[in-house]
Amino acid sequence: MYSHSTFRRVTYAETDKMGYLYYGRYADYFETGRVEALRALGFVYKELEDSGIMMPVLDMQIRYRKPAFYDELLEIQTRIPVLPSVRIEFDYRIVNPQGKLLTEGKTTLVFYDRIKKRPCECPEDMKAMLSGFFTEK
Amino acid sequence: MYSHSTFRRVTYAETDKMGYLYYGRYADYFETGRVEALRALGFVYKELEDSGIMMPVLDMQIRYRKPAFYDELLEIQTRIPVLPSVRIEFDYRIVNPQGKLLTEGKTTLVFYDRIKKRPCECPEDMKAMLSGFFTEK
Amino acid sequence: MYSHSTFRRVTYAETDKMGYLYYGRYADYFETGRVEALRALGFVYKELEDSGIMMPVLDMQIRYRKPAFYDELLEIQTRIPVLPSVRIEFDYRIVNPQGKLLTEGKTTLVFYDRIKKRPCECPEDMKAMLSGFFTEK
Amino acid sequence: MYSHSTFRRVTYAETDKMGYLYYGRYADYFETGRVEALRALGFVYKELEDSGIMMPVLDMQIRYRKPAFYDELLEIQTRIPVLPSVRIEFDYRIVNPQGKLLTEGKTTLVFYDRIKKRPCECPEDMKAMLSGFFTEK
Repeated sequence: MYSHSTFRRVTYAETDKMGYLYYGRYADYFETGRVEALRALGFVYKELEDSGIMMPVLDMQIRYRKPAFYDELLEIQTRIPVLPSVRIEFDYRIVNPQGKLLTEGKTTLVFYDRIKKRPCECPEDMKAMLSGFFTEK
Repeated sequence: MYSHSTFRRVTYAETDKMGYLYYGRYADYFETGRVEALRALGFVYKELEDSGIMMPVLDMQIRYRKPAFYDELLEIQTRIPVLPSVRIEFDYRIVNPQGKLLTEGKTTLVFYDRIKKRPCECPEDMKAMLSGFFTEK
Repeated sequence: MYSHSTFRRVTYAETDKMGYLYYGRYADYFETGRVEALRALGFVYKELEDSGIMMPVLDMQIRYRKPAFYDELLEIQTRIPVLPSVRIEFDYRIVNPQGKLLTEGKTTLVFYDRIKKRPCECPEDMKAMLSGFFTEK
Repeated sequence: MYSHSTFRRVTYAETDKMGYLYYGRYADYFETGRVEALRALGFVYKELEDSGIMMPVLDMQIRYRKPAFYDELLEIQTRIPVLPSVRIEFDYRIVNPQGKLLTEGKTTLVFYDRIKKRPCECPEDMKAMLSGFFTEK
């Protein structure tokens, strides 16, 4: 299992009249979580896409436990729980500065070859890099 | 079961560099779906909130089947599958102009009394109005 | 001068913790205004872009007079004040249901040939259509 | 004159089908610029608002010179060019990693007393702090 943590501050633009981070904006935080998790491993999603591999999202689940408020610096904890194949899963936990778990989420993405216009296997170098985190004891 | 349908056009602002409606913006379409579904029954969410009852979202699930593209006039099909109590469920289907199902979603919201700061029952008049759609044969 | 009017409802997603339509979201309303103004003339921006002509924005000015609130059905009044050449100007007025002017804006866009990668003249059929609105008496 | 610099990375969510940072999202970058400029001086906008002073935006001007692209880490250069009174001005320059100026902007905000429901003077401590940057030679 591979874990990574990054931070993002709730802006005024993202709040709603309830004073909360709008429920639909968590998807943007999940994007930041997985892109930075991959970058920390040496994989820049932009370069992947420039090389012809896209990663559209297949599904998302979110459980909202507590609201996030304006100007809070939220921690985005991202995990890749399973070694990817054609699909890759990400789990997310959004945690506030007091350490409270606010939101849990999960997305499944698919590797997609833009030229061949069909799903493809996770790139070998990414799989090799990740496999180190899934070695059996 | 109560069903309702409304339409919303994909704007340039909502697209991403893949040329698709960004995966996180479907939550906004679901908001439009449920607010218009309630309005068609005579319940204006703004007035509910002004009267002290908020409806924060507890969870959301989305299944992305096909992408939505810029300028498509999407149909948002919204259903209330179960008579609400303290919680209310909404199901959504996003359908493109060719009649293809693009996305399926589901949210659970809770009725919340802002003064008492705790969950509360679905307002009686809303429950009475909805119960007509759940009458047993 | 060509004038057009369309409507758009303020969603929860677009509000901020002040309870107002967030100041940055007016650009989205201006987009809706100019796209629908062109559509009413028979020009679909998507088709223009598919044909190789893009219209990036060069500048924008906004004057915020009064706030717009959640669920208000705003009128977007759009004008093309000058016959376009390589550039096209749009003026906007956002008006609330009580007829109050909330916001005034202005954008300049440029016609841009994606293949030749340089600015180009306004398409002839658009100029011909618009010239009818600028005929001298 | 007071100057400050901060950084923000262009997310997928913020791009449009042209592949650019959507023209309306620069307002969000300006928000980040001015909030971080004030924070660096010791003024947290959230605390100002909690104390009853809001700062709604009166006007905005933007000049788009070059597009910003996905995943670019943009520098937001923010200046307060004039000592604030009832109003405060901010100038912005968005600069890409190659040092190219992409966008220039300007906003005017007003200090507004939420209790008295009317414009008010810039708080004394903020004015005192800023006046150090405007001392005549």
